[in-house]
Amino acid sequence: MADLPFDATDPRLAAAAWSRIVEPGDPAAGTLVAHVGAVDALDWLVRTVREGRAATGGSRPWEQAVGRWAPRLDNLDVRRELDVLARLGGALVVPGDPEWPARLDDLGERRPFALWVRGGLAQVGAPAPAPGGAPPAPPAPVAPGAAVAVVGSRAATAYGQRVAAELAAGLVAEGVSVVSGGAYGIDAAAHRGALAAGGHTVAVLAGGVDRLYPAGNTALLEAVLAAGAVVAEVPPGCAPSRSRFLARNRLIAALGAATVVVEAAWRSGALSTAAHAAGLSRPVGAVPGPVTSMASAGCHRLLREQGAVCVTDAAEVLELVGPAGEHLPEDPPVQTGLLDGLDPRAARVLDALPVRAAAPVANVARTAGLAVAEVRAVLGLLELQGRAERSGSGWRRRAATAAAPSRGARRTVRT
Amino acid sequence: MADLPFDATDPRLAAAAWSRIVEPGDPAAGTLVAHVGAVDALDWLVRTVREGRAATGGSRPWEQAVGRWAPRLDNLDVRRELDVLARLGGALVVPGDPEWPARLDDLGERRPFALWVRGGLAQVGAPAPAPGGAPPAPPAPVAPGAAVAVVGSRAATAYGQRVAAELAAGLVAEGVSVVSGGAYGIDAAAHRGALAAGGHTVAVLAGGVDRLYPAGNTALLEAVLAAGAVVAEVPPGCAPSRSRFLARNRLIAALGAATVVVEAAWRSGALSTAAHAAGLSRPVGAVPGPVTSMASAGCHRLLREQGAVCVTDAAEVLELVGPAGEHLPEDPPVQTGLLDGLDPRAARVLDALPVRAAAPVANVARTAGLAVAEVRAVLGLLELQGRAERSGSGWRRRAATAAAPSRGARRTVRT
Repeated sequence: MADLPFDATDPRLAAAAWSRIVEPGDPAAGTLVAHVGAVDALDWLVRTVREGRAATGGSRPWEQAVGRWAPRLDNLDVRRELDVLARLGGALVVPGDPEWPARLDDLGERRPFALWVRGGLAQVGAPAPAPGGAPPAPPAPVAPGAAVAVVGSRAATAYGQRVAAELAAGLVAEGVSVVSGGAYGIDAAAHRGALAAGGHTVAVLAGGVDRLYPAGNTALLEAVLAAGAVVAEVPPGCAPSRSRFLARNRLIAALGAATVVVEAAWRSGALSTAAHAAGLSRPVGAVPGPVTSMASAGCHRLLREQGAVCVTDAAEVLELVGPAGEHLPEDPPVQTGLLDGLDPRAARVLDALPVRAAAPVANVARTAGLAVAEVRAVLGLLELQGRAERSGSGWRRRAATAAAPSRGARRTVRT
Repeated sequence: MADLPFDATDPRLAAAAWSRIVEPGDPAAGTLVAHVGAVDALDWLVRTVREGRAATGGSRPWEQAVGRWAPRLDNLDVRRELDVLARLGGALVVPGDPEWPARLDDLGERRPFALWVRGGLAQVGAPAPAPGGAPPAPPAPVAPGAAVAVVGSRAATAYGQRVAAELAAGLVAEGVSVVSGGAYGIDAAAHRGALAAGGHTVAVLAGGVDRLYPAGNTALLEAVLAAGAVVAEVPPGCAPSRSRFLARNRLIAALGAATVVVEAAWRSGALSTAAHAAGLSRPVGAVPGPVTSMASAGCHRLLREQGAVCVTDAAEVLELVGPAGEHLPEDPPVQTGLLDGLDPRAARVLDALPVRAAAPVANVARTAGLAVAEVRAVLGLLELQGRAERSGSGWRRRAATAAAPSRGARRTVRT
């Protein structure tokens, strides 16, 4: 290993090196490292290149990949990138570390080799509390590892941003971390909502964490890493290229126990995150919006074609990830109408009763389409309830008592 | 049959009588009439009441129901109601008539006995063209019998009314009839949209067709019966009671090959129409809306809990009823981005190319994470496409040609 200026027998350094050598999500490298470990895989690569065997190739995926990995062995020294990270107060997290999000392992050969982390992961993506590993960043989620990806368009509307912020705030209020990208629009709104509610949120960047991209979100992402974490699978210094954005989306999907798309155009990167989540058998929720808004067309596409679940508030999102029934939304309060709570027969009698001049029972029966005896029995009950009264030889409706005011305006309009 | 002042052996008069005697959707009457026909059923009822056997009862549903049917035999004379209908230019339609909507037969024992019709049904609800029966009302749907129920809240928003009108217009443009109620809000907007597009639309009322209810929709309903039809299962003179509204919803659901809910609050009569449609194994579509709008909460509930299909335009509604693929929505035009149409490897190379100072192939390979030979091959292709150019010993990106303008604004925002 004389070719490398750092101790390539150190598993952490070898993992960091792999995260520098290959483009994110390269399955050939993932398979090789999974089989022999980062150290031996790196040793094999260095020897193959040194001995000039790269050009001869071979049939196995990693043999065919040496040609594309070799250029990055020149001047490879991950100590530089680790120094940059350390100066920024960050830390490398590799598989096996207590902070390693176990949910990432579901990515198989596309699992990242390492995470370059600023801030604290707070057990995001851990299926269970790690033994002895205290969550490094306040406020820690109540349920360690509970996290939901909240993603959507950069070109978000005011509606979408409001909904994203409210969803995120509602999730962190239940001790669930939010995971998103670092983009304008829905990503930023989700982080803002989580931060405003004092919660834990994670931004996964496509480029290195030394560069908080996009520049306009620098202050926001600094707040995110102070209360949560900013992470990347590529080392500091790496640019956020288009292909890295697409590969990054698989990390967001894998870190969340579910993925919610708040707004997405017909073709949107957020749909790739949803597709990754579905590929991982994670639930996908989509927030509906006006059909007249192109910013929701991708969400409606998910609902219509991809089997996404319609979610309208944080409680419904929690239903996606919690044990069934744990987060059942409260049945909304409903304004009580005059005929509510009556059996259909009584409702028909009440409906048939005149309000002013009283009517004989036979007339009420004819109007209601019920037998006279039935009407008599029902009238007795309605009289007891104060809803009907005798008047002369007939019956009439009693002035309705005021309906109980509804507890909330939402969902209470009767039609 | 001396008790009745009209010829109760006339099947049309007997059917009309049953529609007067029982409340809509009474399954006991439906079963009796289905078994022996309207004439014999009426004869049995009259004899049972005349002979005083009503009070003794019996175990069969119609025997137990005589008590509630008997009051309406007093003064029963459907010739009066038929006269009213005739003066209004309407006609009674009974099962077996060419104009009878065969889809109503799916209601089984809850099938209406007759329809009191003003205007023309134009084969709505017919599975196939009736032999020799020319559609009575212009414009006839291109595909006889094609009809979709478009329903929703009275308390509709401007958004919901706009969407309902556009859906209805899009449906009639394809020769499909619209079916709805006569209420304010979504019902009215659907009729308006159908009429504005010169189409055929049907309003199903809960009360008699002599009274165009609600009064504020009189002018609209007169336009509906001029271009389409206003129908009821109860005779003229009957009031639109609450229970009749609920029973009426089953007719709307049965007349449509599918039911679409445009806006509905958490509890809304439109949801009962959707439930009837689902009970008839008819497709149910729901139009999403802002989650912040209580007017869409019922639609989202249908999407989330009832398996309704998310529909956002008329083409998607037609997908519910047409043979698969017949009305496939056009894939929306998408703005062409710089990297569209490139294979991922080429996209990575283009992404790695500097725009100003040219870079050597080795540097491009390192940036792109590809082998030098691969990069050379891709650069040759990109040069042919005019996307890359040599400069000295290196390569750089060529200024992008202007992207083709998108054909429409909808769904074209890239995120």
